[in-house]
This record gives sequence, structure tokens and C-alpha cells, in this order.
Amino acid sequence: MDKVSFFSIVKNYKAVFLDSYGVLKNHQGLIEGVVDTIKLIRDEGIELRVLTNDASRSQVQQVQMFEDLGLRGLEEKEIITSGMLARQFLELKIKTGKFAYLGTENSANYIMKNGLTGIPISDVDIENSSDVAAFVFLDDEGFDWHRDINRTINFLRRNNLPIIVANSDKYYPISRDDVAVAIGGISRLCESVLNQKFIRFGKPDSQMFMFAYDDINETGNFGKSDILMVGDTLHTDILGGNKFGLKTLLVLSGNTRAKHAEVKINSTGIIPDYIADSILE
Amino acid sequence: MDKVSFFSIVKNYKAVFLDSYGVLKNHQGLIEGVVDTIKLIRDEGIELRVLTNDASRSQVQQVQMFEDLGLRGLEEKEIITSGMLARQFLELKIKTGKFAYLGTENSANYIMKNGLTGIPISDVDIENSSDVAAFVFLDDEGFDWHRDINRTINFLRRNNLPIIVANSDKYYPISRDDVAVAIGGISRLCESVLNQKFIRFGKPDSQMFMFAYDDINETGNFGKSDILMVGDTLHTDILGGNKFGLKTLLVLSGNTRAKHAEVKINSTGIIPDYIADSILE
Amino acid sequence: MDKVSFFSIVKNYKAVFLDSYGVLKNHQGLIEGVVDTIKLIRDEGIELRVLTNDASRSQVQQVQMFEDLGLRGLEEKEIITSGMLARQFLELKIKTGKFAYLGTENSANYIMKNGLTGIPISDVDIENSSDVAAFVFLDDEGFDWHRDINRTINFLRRNNLPIIVANSDKYYPISRDDVAVAIGGISRLCESVLNQKFIRFGKPDSQMFMFAYDDINETGNFGKSDILMVGDTLHTDILGGNKFGLKTLLVLSGNTRAKHAEVKINSTGIIPDYIADSILE
Amino acid sequence: MDKVSFFSIVKNYKAVFLDSYGVLKNHQGLIEGVVDTIKLIRDEGIELRVLTNDASRSQVQQVQMFEDLGLRGLEEKEIITSGMLARQFLELKIKTGKFAYLGTENSANYIMKNGLTGIPISDVDIENSSDVAAFVFLDDEGFDWHRDINRTINFLRRNNLPIIVANSDKYYPISRDDVAVAIGGISRLCESVLNQKFIRFGKPDSQMFMFAYDDINETGNFGKSDILMVGDTLHTDILGGNKFGLKTLLVLSGNTRAKHAEVKINSTGIIPDYIADSILE
Repeated sequence: MDKVSFFSIVKNYKAVFLDSYGVLKNHQGLIEGVVDTIKLIRDEGIELRVLTNDASRSQVQQVQMFEDLGLRGLEEKEIITSGMLARQFLELKIKTGKFAYLGTENSANYIMKNGLTGIPISDVDIENSSDVAAFVFLDDEGFDWHRDINRTINFLRRNNLPIIVANSDKYYPISRDDVAVAIGGISRLCESVLNQKFIRFGKPDSQMFMFAYDDINETGNFGKSDILMVGDTLHTDILGGNKFGLKTLLVLSGNTRAKHAEVKINSTGIIPDYIADSILE
Repeated sequence: MDKVSFFSIVKNYKAVFLDSYGVLKNHQGLIEGVVDTIKLIRDEGIELRVLTNDASRSQVQQVQMFEDLGLRGLEEKEIITSGMLARQFLELKIKTGKFAYLGTENSANYIMKNGLTGIPISDVDIENSSDVAAFVFLDDEGFDWHRDINRTINFLRRNNLPIIVANSDKYYPISRDDVAVAIGGISRLCESVLNQKFIRFGKPDSQMFMFAYDDINETGNFGKSDILMVGDTLHTDILGGNKFGLKTLLVLSGNTRAKHAEVKINSTGIIPDYIADSILE
Repeated sequence: MDKVSFFSIVKNYKAVFLDSYGVLKNHQGLIEGVVDTIKLIRDEGIELRVLTNDASRSQVQQVQMFEDLGLRGLEEKEIITSGMLARQFLELKIKTGKFAYLGTENSANYIMKNGLTGIPISDVDIENSSDVAAFVFLDDEGFDWHRDINRTINFLRRNNLPIIVANSDKYYPISRDDVAVAIGGISRLCESVLNQKFIRFGKPDSQMFMFAYDDINETGNFGKSDILMVGDTLHTDILGGNKFGLKTLLVLSGNTRAKHAEVKINSTGIIPDYIADSILE
Repeated sequence: MDKVSFFSIVKNYKAVFLDSYGVLKNHQGLIEGVVDTIKLIRDEGIELRVLTNDASRSQVQQVQMFEDLGLRGLEEKEIITSGMLARQFLELKIKTGKFAYLGTENSANYIMKNGLTGIPISDVDIENSSDVAAFVFLDDEGFDWHRDINRTINFLRRNNLPIIVANSDKYYPISRDDVAVAIGGISRLCESVLNQKFIRFGKPDSQMFMFAYDDINETGNFGKSDILMVGDTLHTDILGGNKFGLKTLLVLSGNTRAKHAEVKINSTGIIPDYIADSILE
């Protein structure tokens, strides 16, 4: 597949959905030149959303993080995280009461609204927890893995309640060479021991794309063919975008490196509509 | 979980989504009394959609089938099939050209619109098929399993193109005791040999619910909390409805029998908001 | 990993286990030169066994097949098939009565000894089959896939009995480019519908290697470090040989082609002790 | 399936293989009466082996543990652990050099013989570790889960070497109601992130049974039909015993409780030859 220029392609669309890691930033910080690309997108009047499988930060915190990295002017509403879907689920299905969680207090605060109270699994009284109405896998930090993963499993063996995973990724990059297990990976370990399937939020699931799609249609009038999805990962960004019916563009500035792109596309059967080196030109 | 009366629950909702098999009909035909229930739903002014993992019949043919069974007055727009999602995918992502398929000619005709031509895998020249732009798993009938499943695998080994599954169910009931392998099951066999994951449409995927949700909001104004999803199968109807944020009601008139319901709910962790014997009272 | 000469390596071992397809023969027939290699092995006094995931032919028929291809002098006892393990299982666990099967009559005859009678699934009276004591997946030929796969599933839904798979391979090569679904692939489709795991025989399972190991130790005195396993497929021959504790040699004359070998070894983590182009030099 | 008396069955066999947890002991200690049963087995002249998926203790330490619980007279050679298979693998395939591991120092000491040196993953210099020849998942204790599981994954991403799992169990019981994730569960999390399959040792794999079988045949003359396998877990003890061709007896004194036994047997298709309450009568 021939490579294209992102600039030449994006001009044909009324909206663009961007993955965060590997597209806008990497382990070293903001990808150099991204500020100019965002300016170009704005100058062209193209609607923008950032779609990220991340439940560790609120929208406000995401905007702040980009500002700290040097990308100013993103608006809160332009950030869509998988944590927002988890929060929406609780609002619709649980409404009031307590939810237990694995993650940081910060990640819990974000979904702890409107009558819901979060309680870390370390504070749950396993023998007497009938007041807990749901369990949420939120973040890979904020708890003792050995103690609290086992505690989670024994709590879930005793209680039959909705279990949701606020970020379905198995792992995430932390440097050029290294990764860390994400809460989605930890949730799979628990699924395997419990022999259950939890409710997962995040790309490639259609719900993430639907959320962004509904959002831009609150004020505008966008069809699916008006939108370009841009990401660095075949099995989340591209698969999800394809399935939702968007045109998809794979960038080689992140997870999928140039020399492996073709082999990966062939072996997975996940085919982007376009490939570009980055969103920088 | 205590059982409820469907009638008493449905009155609290502005719309109801019904699974077809196990809710409206079973292997013997229409479930007796369903005609009165549909009348009640209409009399209450509740919006109705039937959501079915079935790509073998068009909406028109589904309406006709229900009429032949004795349920008159369903409208074309009230039927939502997984085949419609496959068709939408082709319209958005492929647009023109040929798609190869496993299934009946009838099932292919339904998605063969707007410049797209279907060609059964038995008619594809495997050595010279660069004009084929997509492959669709449509139906478990209409082909020679031994010859054409192998043919499909060898075609897909040679060609890298979007592969979609128009009905993700592994199997479907054909009598009180018996089932038949569905095209979703055949697609999994091919995935296993090819070591790929195809794009699947149908419950429990959010897209099916989104399609219905967007559809009723074309003319009305429905929030997710206004809608009740009713089905007989935990891992399609109830899981999908829960994940989309709808209230869910499990009926015991189909796949999930009364004596197994509690064990299944406990072992899968898929928890309906309500359980009722059927939609008949 | 540097390539070695098979001749130079094999001389260090007292016994050699050879895979059949991709090592001795390919889709065109016997690999040219193999007759000389077998002669060399015999001249060196190295014990030889052929280990093949194949339940369609008896040992006698395998010897005949090699003779027809031009390789004379293999002895019956030198052939070890996964079908022999299925037969041994029935002898030990079932002993007498009927077993139902998917496969050819020939494949059934081979395991139909000592008081056991085979009955093709097409002849089983599904409603009245209490005399059937086991089910065997034998071969991908000899039955109507559509009718008999569905029939098998409905039979197994009604009856709780030992189910064995006489060849665990998902598919097998039939020409340079083409494959065919093997009975191991069909068994997985049935497992997926029934949500069960059957008992599978064949490489990479240790039992196949144990059978060969015990066999050569009937008359000789071989430790595991005296044996070299040679095969063309990482996840059957090499994984199985490694796990059993044998030294392993991957040949590039079959399934694993030279240009993909390194990538496959890295991505699977299945590491042969040696790599050679073939067993021809 | 009718229940039998263990005493009446075992007398028909020349050897008996016993699982440890759920058969001989439980979370409270030795199962009361087991001492008499072992005496009966010895008085009858029946050969005995204990087969346990445990790599945390050596044979000597296992014997000592049983003595501390009140069961005297087990001999070292009568204990067969999955750790012994891991050790055998290293002896046959690696021979000399370093292996990195997750587990306690005690578990590493046991397999650290004959020129092999173990190094905990926390002490490995990830950037410079070419002297490490294998990786072993040994035990769920002895390391910091958060730091060292991530460290293991990043080490294995950089190095292509044999990876073995010395205990394939996902979890183990620690009290009447509670379980703990075993090293087999942690290894699966790593497999899922790395997209690889490691080499696993332990029941239900045939190798564990083969080890015991070969061992009793060093001094005796046992066929497979002379041996009874006794265990409390269908998918390890019974599946493994069945597949190896032994007669199997399920006891209801551990993992599989009386009220669930029939449902579990039906839903898994793993069928013991006999069921007994315990080995106490």
C-alpha cells in the first residue's frame, strides 16, 4: 500500500478522530510538529476529537496534560476517554450506591458522581459487602498488586454484580522499548480465574466511536463518510474505525513501525484505507 | 432474583427492543399470545423494534415471515437485522465492485445494492480474483460446506481484503432439542485456520443497539433510560443491552430455561435487571 | 540462528524422529533425495521413527503409501500415527461396545478392534443411542459436512460420553498454495458450539513422543538426550519435541519457509536447537 | 453416576496415583482418616504416587510437610511435582548457564542443579542479559508483583529464549472460600501481553502421568490398566488421567462438591470412571 500525506487526505473530511499515544505524543512527550498540525486542522474548519483508551485521567486532566506538553487550546469536550464510557454505564445502570474498584483514587473520583461512592477493594469488607453494587477495573496503579488482585478475585467469587473494565488495553508503552501491563490486562487475568467475561470499554469497541460520533452531531451534521479515524494501532484504532464505517488512516509514528506495517496488515487482515508516516505532513 | 410481570415493567418505558427467536417465536411458530402483547405495546404508545441476528432475510421478508406466522402489522422499519449492519458497512467502506460470499443468493441480493455485485465463492476464480473487494459470511445455507469452506479459506489466504460476518451467532435452534451451526460458527472455523479475526456484526455488539437507538431517535426523542431490551439469551441480548446502557429483561420462553437461569447468571456474571416468564403477561 | 547440515548433526544421535509431511514428502510426492538420507540413517545404525498427525491410514497403509512414492523399506513399527493413540485410548478406556465417528470407513476400521464396533454418525439413531460409548473425530472425508457436522453436534448435546480427536491438526497442505480443513479443525468448531474441550491426540502433545520413546526402548536403551526430533512446523514438531526434552531440528523444506523462519521463531518463542534447509545434506 | 466406595475400587488396581490437595489434605490440614487409608493401600501392596501441580517445594520438603500434618512414612520417590518436570526440562535442554525466574529462592534452588544458576528477575540487568538461557515461572511468591511482572514482560520482549511454567494451575485454594492466583495464572497474563505460548508443566498434561508411570515401572511391571488415578478436579486430575488411559476416580472432598458434580461433568464432558465421597471409605 502506498503511503500518503496526512495533510492531503484530511482536507477531504469534515471531522477527524485522533488517537492520542503514537499520534499526538510518544514516550518522549509531544511529537514535534503536532502543534502546527492541530492549527492546520482548526484553520481548515475540521472538527476534531481525541479518542483514548485511558481511564486514569478526567477530560480536564487530559487537557492539562497536553498543555503541559506544549499543546494548548484543546477543549475539554474534544477529549473522549474510555473512562467516560464506564462513567456513563454506571450512571445509566447503577445510579446510586457503592462501587468497588482497582485503581487510583483520582481515577475513581472521576466516575464517582451523582450519588455513587467508590471504595477501593482494599477497604471492602469481603465478608459483608452487600452494599456494593458494581466493580470497576480502573487503573493499574494505586493498589498492591499481589494483595488486591487476589482480594478482587475473592470478592467477585462471593458477589454477583456488574463488572466493568474502564480501559480494555492489555498494556501501554512507557518508553521506546518498554511497556507496562494495563488494567485491561489485569482484568483478563481475573476473567481467566473466574471464568467470566466482564464488560469492557474502549477501542476497538463501537461504543467509543459512537460516543464521539453522537458528540459532534450535537452541534453539527456529520455522516460517517465525513470522518477520518487516525491511529497507530491496527487492532484498536483501525479495526474499530473500520467496523464503525469510518475511513481509517494508519500512522507509523507509534506502535506500528514502517518495516512491520505490511506484514501486520497481511497477517491480521485489518486494512486501513490509508497509511502515512505521521500527521506531520 | 424474583420474577416480574413483563406487562407491569414495560409500561415504565417509552420504547422496547425485542429479540425475535425465544421472545416472539420459537421452533413451533409464533408463541401463543404474542399478538395480544404487541397490541398492548402499541396501545400504550410504546415504540417497538425487533433486533435479530439474522442475515438470511431482508426486512420485507422478515415482516412477511411474521405475517405468515400470524403476527400482522409489523412495519419494515421495526425490524433490525445484523444483515443490515453488514450492508451498511459495504456501503460505507467498499461502495463499488464485487464481494465474494458464503450464503444463499437471496441473502446476497439484500446487500448487493448501489454498485456492488455479489459472487458466490464457488464462482470465484481463485487464481485471478483481484476484482473482489470484500468477503462476506452471510448464511449457513446455499453452498457445499466441504468444497466451499475449503475454497473460502484458500481464497482468503491469497487475498488481503475486508472480511465481514453478517451474523455472529455460532448456532441457532431448529427444534426443541436441536440446533444448527450458523454462519458465525463457520466464520470462526475459518478464523481459526487463518489465524485472523474478522469483522462481526450482531448482538451483543453495541452497533446493533446503536442502529436501533439512532433509528427511533430519527422521529422521536429517546434517552437510553427510556428503553427496555427484552431477550432470551444472556450473552447476546442481555450482555449487549447492559453494555449499551439499556435496562434489560430476560424471558424464560426460549434459550434460557427457568431451572438454569440462576446458575447461568451466576456463572457468566451477565445480570439482567428483570426476569419474566415470557412477554405474555 | 545459523543453519547446519542435517547429516553432521544426526550422527551425534542414537535415534531420530521424523515428521512426515514437509520432511519426507510434500504435495508433489517424495522429496527428491530422501531415499539416500534414509539409507544414511540406516547405515549409521540410527534408530528411526516417523511421527505423523494422521488418523486416515493404518501403519500398513502408511508403509504402502511411502512405497508407492518410491521410499521402500520402512517398517510398520517405524510409523507412529495419532490414530494409534486414539486406538490405544479406546482399548484402555472403552474396551467394548460401539463408538460413533466422523470420518471414512477405512479410518474407522483401523481402530475398530477387539470388541469395538464403529458406526458412522449418519447411521446413528440420535433419539435412541444409549449403546454408543464414545465418539471419535477421525478424518475430514467420508461424510456430508453440512448434514453430519450438525448431526454430530446434536448427538453430542444429548449424550455425555468420551469424545476424542484422532488428529489435532486444524488443516493440512494439499498443494503448494492450498490447504484443507482437517478433522482437528472440524472438532474445534464442534467444541465451540458445545462449549466443551475434547480429548485430542497428536503432536505437540507429549503422548505422541512418549509413544515413540517407549517403542524404541522396547528393544533398545535410549535416553531423551539420545534423540533428535526433526520437523517443518514450529507449533507441532518443535514445540512438542522441546517440551518432551528432545533436541529439535527445524527443516525449511515444508511449512516454515526460509524467509519467515526467524520472524516465526521470534514471534512464537518456539526455538529449535538447530535449523537446516532439509534432511538432504 | 452412582457413587462407589474407594476401598472397594482401589483393591482392583496394582497402583494408585493420588492428587494432593482435596484428596489427602485441604485448607484445614490433613483430611481426617487419610492416615488409615494410606495404611490400607500399603497393606494391600498397592504402589502409591502423589501427583501435585506444585513447584514451590522439593520432594523432601513435600514429605516433611505431610509429616508435619501428621502423615508419616511417605517416601521422597512417592512424590511427583510439576517442578520436577521443569527441572528435567532444564537438565535436558539447557544444561548450563543462567536461568531467570519469578518465584521464591527456595523454589529456584530446587531446579538450580548441575551447572545451572538461577537469578531472580529483579536482579537481571535487562539491557545486558545475553548470559540468561531460559526463563522459569516458578511460584507466585518471592517477588513484587507490580514491578517484577512488568520487568519479566520487558525482559522477554528483548530476549528470545525458552520460557517454561513450572505449575500450570491458574489458582489454588487457600481457605474454604478463598483462592490465590498461582504462577500459572501470572504466566497466562504474560502470554497474553507477549502473544506467545510458553511451555507448561503439570496435570492435565500427559507428561506428569508419564513421569509417574515410568517411575513405578523402574522396579515393577505396570500396565496402564493396572493404575487408578484419584483426584478432586475434573480438568486436571480426571482429564489428564483419562487421556493417559488410566481409570479415574473423582472424589468429592475437594474442589468438586457433591451438588455440582453432575452439572460439571455434563457441561465439561470430562467423565470419571468412578465417583466417591472421599478416599476415607
